[in-house]
Parts: sequence; C-alpha cells; structure tokens
Amino acid sequence: MKYEHIQQEAYEANMQLPKLGLVLFTFGNVSAVDRGLGVFAIKPSGVPYEELSPDKMVIVDLDGNVVEGMLRPSSDTKTHAVLYKHWHKIGGIAHTHSVYATAWAQSQRDIPIFGTTHADHNTVDIPCAAPMSDEMIGGNYEYETGFQIMNCFNERKLDYNEVEMILVGNHAPFTWGKNAAKAVYNSAVLEQVAHMALLTEQINGNAARLKDALIKKHFERKHGPDSYYGQ
Amino acid sequence: MKYEHIQQEAYEANMQLPKLGLVLFTFGNVSAVDRGLGVFAIKPSGVPYEELSPDKMVIVDLDGNVVEGMLRPSSDTKTHAVLYKHWHKIGGIAHTHSVYATAWAQSQRDIPIFGTTHADHNTVDIPCAAPMSDEMIGGNYEYETGFQIMNCFNERKLDYNEVEMILVGNHAPFTWGKNAAKAVYNSAVLEQVAHMALLTEQINGNAARLKDALIKKHFERKHGPDSYYGQ
Amino acid sequence: MKYEHIQQEAYEANMQLPKLGLVLFTFGNVSAVDRGLGVFAIKPSGVPYEELSPDKMVIVDLDGNVVEGMLRPSSDTKTHAVLYKHWHKIGGIAHTHSVYATAWAQSQRDIPIFGTTHADHNTVDIPCAAPMSDEMIGGNYEYETGFQIMNCFNERKLDYNEVEMILVGNHAPFTWGKNAAKAVYNSAVLEQVAHMALLTEQINGNAARLKDALIKKHFERKHGPDSYYGQ
Amino acid sequence: MKYEHIQQEAYEANMQLPKLGLVLFTFGNVSAVDRGLGVFAIKPSGVPYEELSPDKMVIVDLDGNVVEGMLRPSSDTKTHAVLYKHWHKIGGIAHTHSVYATAWAQSQRDIPIFGTTHADHNTVDIPCAAPMSDEMIGGNYEYETGFQIMNCFNERKLDYNEVEMILVGNHAPFTWGKNAAKAVYNSAVLEQVAHMALLTEQINGNAARLKDALIKKHFERKHGPDSYYGQ
Repeated sequence: MKYEHIQQEAYEANMQLPKLGLVLFTFGNVSAVDRGLGVFAIKPSGVPYEELSPDKMVIVDLDGNVVEGMLRPSSDTKTHAVLYKHWHKIGGIAHTHSVYATAWAQSQRDIPIFGTTHADHNTVDIPCAAPMSDEMIGGNYEYETGFQIMNCFNERKLDYNEVEMILVGNHAPFTWGKNAAKAVYNSAVLEQVAHMALLTEQINGNAARLKDALIKKHFERKHGPDSYYGQ
Repeated sequence: MKYEHIQQEAYEANMQLPKLGLVLFTFGNVSAVDRGLGVFAIKPSGVPYEELSPDKMVIVDLDGNVVEGMLRPSSDTKTHAVLYKHWHKIGGIAHTHSVYATAWAQSQRDIPIFGTTHADHNTVDIPCAAPMSDEMIGGNYEYETGFQIMNCFNERKLDYNEVEMILVGNHAPFTWGKNAAKAVYNSAVLEQVAHMALLTEQINGNAARLKDALIKKHFERKHGPDSYYGQ
Repeated sequence: MKYEHIQQEAYEANMQLPKLGLVLFTFGNVSAVDRGLGVFAIKPSGVPYEELSPDKMVIVDLDGNVVEGMLRPSSDTKTHAVLYKHWHKIGGIAHTHSVYATAWAQSQRDIPIFGTTHADHNTVDIPCAAPMSDEMIGGNYEYETGFQIMNCFNERKLDYNEVEMILVGNHAPFTWGKNAAKAVYNSAVLEQVAHMALLTEQINGNAARLKDALIKKHFERKHGPDSYYGQ
Repeated sequence: MKYEHIQQEAYEANMQLPKLGLVLFTFGNVSAVDRGLGVFAIKPSGVPYEELSPDKMVIVDLDGNVVEGMLRPSSDTKTHAVLYKHWHKIGGIAHTHSVYATAWAQSQRDIPIFGTTHADHNTVDIPCAAPMSDEMIGGNYEYETGFQIMNCFNERKLDYNEVEMILVGNHAPFTWGKNAAKAVYNSAVLEQVAHMALLTEQINGNAARLKDALIKKHFERKHGPDSYYGQ
C-alpha cells in the first residue's frame, strides 16, 4: 500500500507514451521516485501498454534491487537507479526509442539549437553522449549507461536541472524532470525538436544556430526569475 | 457578459489547433477581436487545450493590457495587440509552432511558390521576417515581434489583406484573417504548403517557381472580382 | 429523383477522400457519370466534407453546364466534363492535392517506376503533363486542363484504360476509373507510390527503374487475361 | 472444423496489419501453419480487411494447393508455401508493402545496423535479396520468390531462426516467426528500423554502423541464454 502513489504516477506517465506516439510496442519505460522511501516505481519489462495497471509497476531501490513486485522490472532499470542515486532533484525518468530523437542518437550528433521551440526548453544543443567503451558495454551495461550520461553532463559542465534530456549515442534518448509526467513531457518536446532540426537542415544546409539574445530571451520567459509563461 | 461572443469565437478557434495537428501541448494560441469594444479574447498562457473553456479566454485591450480574466494571457499577447492596433481589418490571429512551417522559419528562408495549392492562397513567396536585432529582443520582445512582422510587410510592399501569413525567422509562423477561424485555416494551409515545398525541392533540386499566368489565374479564381470558387 | 444513383455514388466517393488522408479542407473533388443520361454528379465548390450529403451533389452535362442543383459545382468541373466527353469508358474522376503526388507535380517530374507496388497498377512511369501555355491559362482554364491531360496521353501514346492517373505540372493529380470509387482508389495508390518513389531516391540516388520482366509480371498477374489477383 | 485454430490465428494477425499502419487497401497478407496437419491458413486475395472473418481464411498445403476454402488465396501463397516447406521451424509469415521497408527494397540496399533498436532484433544488416533473373520471373514467379529468399540466406550464411526478416529487391518485405503474431510484430519492427535508418543517413551522411560490442550486448539481453528482457 505504501508505494501506491508512485505506482499510480508511473502508470499514468507510462500510458502517455503510446498516446503521444513515442513508442512502438514496449520500446520505452517511465519511472517515478519517492525520495523519502528511497525507491522508485518502474514499468515491468516487455509488458504491452494495454495490459499495464498501477499494481504491475515494480518497486526498486536506488541500487537497482527489486523491493516489491511480481514482475521483472524494465531491462533499463539500473540506468534509472544510477540517475536517481546521483541526481538528487530528479522525480521521474523516461526512456523511449521515438523515431526522430533515436535517429539523431544513431547519427551521434548533438541536436543544434535552431529556433525558439528548442530555446523554450534548453539554452544549449541537446547533447549526444558518445557510445560506451567496449569494457563498459561488456560489464554492467545498464548501470554504466547511467554513468555515461552523467559523465557527458560533467564533461560539458551541464546542469541536469536545466537540461533535462540527452541522447545516448547509437541508442536512444533519456529524459527526466521533477516528476514522471514532466519526464514524458520532455520526451515529446525532444521528439518534436529533433524532427524540426532535421527539416531545418534539409531546407537550408547552412542554417545558423539561434543567436544568443534569442536563446536567453526564450528560456528566461519560461524559466527565469521573471518568467511570464504559464499560470 | 459583453465579451462572450469573442470568448466563444477564440475558444472554438483554439480548439481547432490540436484537431488539425498544428500544436504539441500548449505551443500555440489564437485570438479574436471586437473592434467596437477595442478588445480581443486570447488563450490563457500554458493551459492545456483539454482544460480550456470559453470563459477562460482572457480579454485584453489593443495596448496589451488585461481588461478581464482570472488567468494570465498567452505570452505572445503583445504581438497580437500590436497587429490588431495597426492592421485595422484583421479579425483574428493565430500562432503555432507547426512542424514544417517552423522548420522554414528556423531555416530563415521564404517559402517559394511552387504550385497552385500555394497560389490559391497567395500570389507571392510566403515571407520570412529576419530575426530581430539584439536590442529589440532584449527590450519589449513580444511587442517588437509585432513591429518586426509589420516592418517586413512594409519593406516588401505586401498588403496584409492579401497575404495573411508570415514566418518570423528562427521562431515560427503567425497567420491572420477576417476572423479567428480564418486565421486558423490559414495556419493549416501554410503548414501544408510548407510541407509540399520541402518535398518539391527534395524531388527536384532545380524546381522552378510557378509561372505568373498560373499564379494570377489561381488566385483570381478564388479571390478576384470574378471568383468562382465556393458558394 | 433520376440522378440519385450518381449523387449517392459521388457522395460516397467524396467522403473517402478525407478518410484516406488525401485532402485538407476542401482541396479535392470526385464525380460519377451516367453515360445513358449524359450527365455526371460532382461535389459542390468549397463545401466542407462534413456538410456534404448526396442531394448536394451537382448534376452537370458533358459540356460543363449545370443541369440540376442549388449549389455551384466544383471549380474544376470543366476538366471533368472534357475528360468524360472524350474518354468514353471512364465512370468516375477524382482530383486531390494530396501531399506527395502534388509535390511531384510541382517538381514537374514523372514518377519513375521503382517497384512492384507501382507495377501492380501501371507499366509506365506516372506521367506529369507540362504546365499549360499562357494562352491556355488565360483562356478557359479548367476546360483547357482537360485537353492538357489528353494531349499528354496522346503524345506519349498512353491508353487511359491502362494508365488511370496523371500529374498536371505545377498543379496536382487527377485520377479516374470505371467508377468513382475506383478513381478514389487510384488517388490513394498514387499517393503511396509517390511517397515511396521519393524515399527510394533518398535512400539510393542511383536507384534503377524496375526491369521489364517484373513490370510485365506484376501488371499481368493483376490485370492480364490470366490474372490471379483478387476473387 | 479442424482448421479453425489456424484460421483464427491468421485472421487476428491479418487484422493487425491495418491497425499498425502497415498496409494500404489489400497490399499485404499473413499466414499461420499447422505442422501436424501440413497446411497453413492464409488471407484470401484482394478481400478488404474490413470484410475478413476467420472462416474466409483459405487452407493451403505446403505445395501451394488449396485444401479448403471458397475463396482464392493470396497471390503470394506459393512464396509462403515454399518457406514453410523448407524452413521447418517457422509458424507464421507476413508480407506487406509498408512504406519505408518497401522503399529500401526498391533501392536494393541492405538496411545498415545503426543502433540498438535494430540490434535488439538482429545482429546483422537486414538483407535485401537481389531481384530475380528474368527466367525465374517468367516462370513460376511466386514459387521462385520463395527460393530467392532462401538463396539469399544461404549465400550470406544467415539463420532464419535468428534473422526473421528480408527485403525482396524491387518488391517489398517478408517477415516470419514462431507464429503469425510474431511475424506481424517483425513487420512493424522492420518498418520502424527502416524509417530510422533513412533518417540516420539524412542527419549524418557518414553515420557509422553500430560497433560489435553493442550489437552483441543488445541482442543477447533479449535473445541470449542469459536474456533479461521480458517476463
């Protein structure tokens, strides 16, 4: 009973993935954490979305051990665990193989900031972490994926509270936020930004990055101390 | 009570945006003006479409001041206000971040007139206004966006009664019309024309602009004094 | 009462256009002919699909004169009339501005035959008629469009009973068939073939046309004297 | 009565094709085999999906002869028969003309393995069989298509139990699996992988194939002896 709130949150967020066109079959998963209890609820592995229910969400601790649940958790569970353990202010994480974001990840390119749709959410290019070394892949793969993500942020001096999304090279995107719903929201935004960026380069092979004044303005009107977007 | 008619008009037009596939989440807004009362009704900022109702539309005067409403108006409200104030025959304005039109805006290119679908609605390339100067961006940004749009029309000697759409460079499209429904209609036409123009260039890198006789013929059969399209 | 059968046929075929994703707003029209009565039923001009009903279909003779109906017929009516008058075995005609087929028309390129999906329906590249001369455009435009289509077929020695579709350069596709439903079917096939052909060239800039043996085999298994497709 | 189980299985799998967006009109077919009875159930030729029912599935033996059924079987029936006869562990086969996979087939290119979405299902590029010789096409075409598929696997030393999909050059994809549902699942996966691969090359013309360590890791976590995907 004590995990019902995060099971409900994770369930509702997972169900948004097919509704937003971000997953085929079971190629995605979302989790929601309770910092006080030190556990998160995550989608069970390989279970079709139409068969999900809140009580099927698996409860896992921040080391990736199953605490409660009859089903095996998502195969990406350890990546979630590592991020929750080290990034203390994250409330939810989403992982999809959405078509455009995944294509950028496969291309191993950062997504350039071309317009205000991007700047409304990020002041930088969306980072693409390099594929892992063969040692990391051959070792504790999903665990190392979490560190690959954090290392990329450290090297580039990015703040996970400001940039809530990343592409893992050759793999696919991960996004996060203050709760599971925000993480899914970020997955949808990323997919649209990824789509627009490809189209922009197709229309103009020399398209220029957005200039600094516009980056600053758009991000601040949504996220700055004097923000005036939303209620 | 005296604003109900424009609240209803703005509400219905806003609800067309998700139905036509022109917005993700809250990335768009539509307004409807009453010239006699000197005010317009506009979508509240950041409120999901499924939670909208006519009474939530915010009433604003042509200087951008809120006249009535419990919610904060769209962050783009001042752009609407400037256009209503200076372009006296506009009845409605729509703003979206629709994928193809926005990609052209990010590319900072006018959309070339390649076919009769375009000519049925415009006799010229769809203009892309240059991004604003850093001074304009750092100042009263949304207010200046309105002037950026008008300046582009003035420089190119375009008539806002004939060309009812524009791309704002690095940002996204704005469209307008005799009422809010027509403004939304123009947003959907622009998105389709933007999509077709990209495909046309992909199929034929040397595709030629539509010849003058066809531009004239198609526009006049829909809009000329002897038009014979529609009832 | 005596036109009800073609009104019903035209109505049902028109309603397939939005269902198949081939039209935005009112950018398309379908007609159905009764050869005995010498008239055809066609969509009224500019009326939204959701407001259509069989009795709103306008009855027109093969010279393009309205015989019965309260509404103005489609602005493309004379193109339909010319084709019915000269191509005696056509039972229905469809015209859309579907995105991919229209992009090929705007590019003024024939659609190359790249695969069996195309060969199942046509043994040749899908022809793109040249844009009309300025004299033809400035004259009886829609009437001349019909002749432009027939001239293209005559010059290329194509048989309208075998090739049931064409692109009109800078404009959009027209398709036809034994009845209105078949004409709409052909519009959908054309759109998919147009989409696949663009993708094929994007994947392989040197993609080769389908070889003759496959063209012959696929067309004959669907349309030859020993066809074995369908019931 | 004794074929009801495979008719039901084939029916349900066929109905997934339009639901997954893999077919236009009747451009696809799925079959399900009963190895004990030595027959398979397959979609009747040219019958719209909305008119299908389990009892309309045609029963055919492994030489392609109709055993039971009022309707003519799919024109691709002999290809299914050849594959069932020679590949003893296949339980179901699907054939579609889905847009992206078909475009790769028309381009006569293997689909390069660019990411983990691909590696989750295959450790190799998805093979594209060469178009058949004119003799094979002019002979027993659909029968020879089956051999063309098998020859491609033999030449490349591929195992049909590991790689469950192929593109037939200039034609379209075939997929298979332990049952009809798995064959359809593979068709949908193939379509998404085909889409992502095209986008990947568009984003980065020099995109590198996935490195061996990631190919091995992702395939094994889903399919190896120590797999930990799913329940």
